Amino acid sequence: MSWEENVRKVIPYVAGEQPNQPGMIKLNTNECPYPPSPEVKKAILSLEPEKMRLYPDTDAAELTNALAEYYGLKPEQVFVGVGSDDVLAMAFLTFFHSDKPILFPDVTYSFYDVWADLYRIPYHRCALDENWHICPQDYMADNGGVIFPNPNAPTGVEESLETIERIVSANRNVVVIVDEAYVDFGGHSALPLLEKYDNLLIVQTFSKSRAMAGMRIGFALGNEKLIRYLRDVKFSTNSYTMNYASQVIGLEALKDDGYFHTITQKIVDTRERAKVKFRELGFRFPDSKTNFLFVTHKVMPASRLFAALREKNIYVRYWNKPRIDNYLRVTIGTEDEMNRLFAFLEQYLQNRS
Amino acid sequence: MSWEENVRKVIPYVAGEQPNQPGMIKLNTNECPYPPSPEVKKAILSLEPEKMRLYPDTDAAELTNALAEYYGLKPEQVFVGVGSDDVLAMAFLTFFHSDKPILFPDVTYSFYDVWADLYRIPYHRCALDENWHICPQDYMADNGGVIFPNPNAPTGVEESLETIERIVSANRNVVVIVDEAYVDFGGHSALPLLEKYDNLLIVQTFSKSRAMAGMRIGFALGNEKLIRYLRDVKFSTNSYTMNYASQVIGLEALKDDGYFHTITQKIVDTRERAKVKFRELGFRFPDSKTNFLFVTHKVMPASRLFAALREKNIYVRYWNKPRIDNYLRVTIGTEDEMNRLFAFLEQYLQNRS
Repeated sequence: MSWEENVRKVIPYVAGEQPNQPGMIKLNTNECPYPPSPEVKKAILSLEPEKMRLYPDTDAAELTNALAEYYGLKPEQVFVGVGSDDVLAMAFLTFFHSDKPILFPDVTYSFYDVWADLYRIPYHRCALDENWHICPQDYMADNGGVIFPNPNAPTGVEESLETIERIVSANRNVVVIVDEAYVDFGGHSALPLLEKYDNLLIVQTFSKSRAMAGMRIGFALGNEKLIRYLRDVKFSTNSYTMNYASQVIGLEALKDDGYFHTITQKIVDTRERAKVKFRELGFRFPDSKTNFLFVTHKVMPASRLFAALREKNIYVRYWNKPRIDNYLRVTIGTEDEMNRLFAFLEQYLQNRS
Repeated sequence: MSWEENVRKVIPYVAGEQPNQPGMIKLNTNECPYPPSPEVKKAILSLEPEKMRLYPDTDAAELTNALAEYYGLKPEQVFVGVGSDDVLAMAFLTFFHSDKPILFPDVTYSFYDVWADLYRIPYHRCALDENWHICPQDYMADNGGVIFPNPNAPTGVEESLETIERIVSANRNVVVIVDEAYVDFGGHSALPLLEKYDNLLIVQTFSKSRAMAGMRIGFALGNEKLIRYLRDVKFSTNSYTMNYASQVIGLEALKDDGYFHTITQKIVDTRERAKVKFRELGFRFPDSKTNFLFVTHKVMPASRLFAALREKNIYVRYWNKPRIDNYLRVTIGTEDEMNRLFAFLEQYLQNRS
C-alpha cells in the first residue's frame, strides 16, 4: 500500500487564465477595469511594518464594523473572508452537512460542484429554463441546502426578489445561499429579506465592483446565528485568515462610496453600449445585470471566435461544456478596451461573412 | 426541523488573546519581538493599487521560486498558503483521508484535534514521555497519518533527526507531517530527509522567525507528488488565497537573509539568558529550541502567576489542560521585555516566599 491511497483526490477548479502580455485586453475573469479608490494609495502608505510582526485582528473588526454599518446590520451579522471563494467554501463546509443533495443551477459558477466534491456533499443540478432563468419549483424538492448566484454567472441573468423569496421561504429547514458577487452592477440584493429569513446567507466580494481581486476580500451577511456557525468553522480552520494589509486597505476602499458608485456606473454604461454593439454585430445574449455579457453569435462558433480573439491577445472566457459551448463570457472593460474588441470583431466577422 | 440540524458543529480553536494595551508586554502568541526586515518598508512602497484590481498570481510563483531556491528544492516541491495553519488544514483535508486514526502527541499544537474534528478524521493522541519526548514506538501502530511539530509546541522540545527518520520510515504507507513552525531558533529541519522519503511533508511559516504573522504566509516542502495533491485541494477551495501584498512583501522579507539570521540569533541569545534567569527564580522547563520557554515554578502555581502577570499587562499563555496546567508558555521577547518580566517575577515571588 502507498500513502497515495489515503489521499483525497479531487478534480480541481480551473480558474480563468491570468495572462500577462503587454497590450493585452483582459476580459476573461470579470475583474474591474478601473483601479481601486485613490484612498487605497493612502492606505498602502499607512501600512506599518512593525504591525506585520503581530497576528492580524482575527475578527477584522474595523472592516466588519464598517461593512455592518454600510449594509445597516449588526457587526454580528457580518463575516469576512479571503475572497468570496473562501467565504463560500466555508459556508459549504458549515451549512451543507446533510445527506440530502444540495441544489444549484446546471449553468452557474463552476466552483459549486468542486466544493461539493471536495467535501463529499451530494448535489443535484437544476436546469435553467431556455431563457437561463431559474425554475423556482425545482428548488421545492427535498434537499440539503440551496445555492445560486444572483445575478447568475456566467449568464448575467438576474432573478427577481420575489423568486428569491419563494425559494428561501420554501426552504426554511436548510440554508439558502445567494451569491451576490455581481449584484453591484444594477442588480437587487436580497438584503431586505434578511430580517424575515434566518436561513438566508448573502455572500458578496470586493473582487469585482470594488476593484480589489488582488487583495482577497469577501464577506457574508446573515442572521447572527448563521454567522456564528460560520465563524466557528473559520476558527477551526485558521484563526487569522485576512491579513493586516487587506484589513487596512479594504476598509479605506469601502469608505470611498463616491468612487465606488462612479466606477460601477461607468461599467454599467459601458455594458449598455456594449449590448447595442454586440447586437449590431449579430450576437445574442441574455440581458445582463453584471459586469460581463454572455454572448453567442448567429453564425460564428464561439470556440473559433475565442481562438481568434486569443491570437490578438484579447482574452475572454469560454467553456467547452454542455449548453454553453457556443457562448463567450466577455467581461466589461474600459471604453477603450471595448472599442478595440469591437473593432476586431467587426473586421473579423466581416471578412468571414 | 430547523436548518440548524444540518449545520456542521465544531468546538473552535481558541487562539491566544490579542490584547492591545499601551505598555503591555505581549509574550503569549510566539510572535517575533522585532519588526520584519527593513526591505519590507520598501516592498510596501512598491505596492501598486492598479495591480490590486487583478487577481493575484494563483501560484505565488515568485515567492514559491524564491523559497525553492532558498531550500535547494524545485518549485514543484513548494506549496504556499495563508499562514501555516492554512497549509496544515489543507494537508489534513488532503492526506488524512483514511478511516484509521491519525497520530499526534498528547501535548502539542492545539489545532490538530480541531482540524481532525472539523474534517471528521479519527485520531489518537500518543503520550509524550515524562521529559516531554515522543516515544517513537507509539507511531509504529497502524494509522491513517502522523503529525507532530518539531520542535514541539508548547513544550519547546526538539526530537533528533534519527527519531524523525524512524517515524517517517516506519510509516511509508501514510503521510507524515513535520510542523517546523519553530525550527529556525536552533532546531534541525527534516529537510535532508525529503530526498529519501516521499511520504514526508514539512511545514514552515513566516509568522515566527520571519516576523510576519500579520501577513499570513506559510509553506510546505515535500516531493512533487505530495505537493501536487495539496495544490489540487487548494485549487478546489479557493484559487487565489495569498494576496498580492503578501506575495510582494513575503518575497522581499525572504531575500534579506542577513536580517533573518540577525534577529533569530538575537532571540536565541535572549532565550539562553532567560533560561539562566528562570532557573535562578526557581522555575524548571524542558530545554527549548524555540522562541518560547515552557516553564513551571517549584512552588507558585502557574494559574496564579498567569493571573498576576496579566494584571501587570504581561501576557503569557496558560492552558488549563491535563499535564500542562501548572506550566506557562512564555514567548521570548526583546531583552528589555524579558528584563521587565524578570523584575516583576523576582519581586512577586520574593513577596510570596
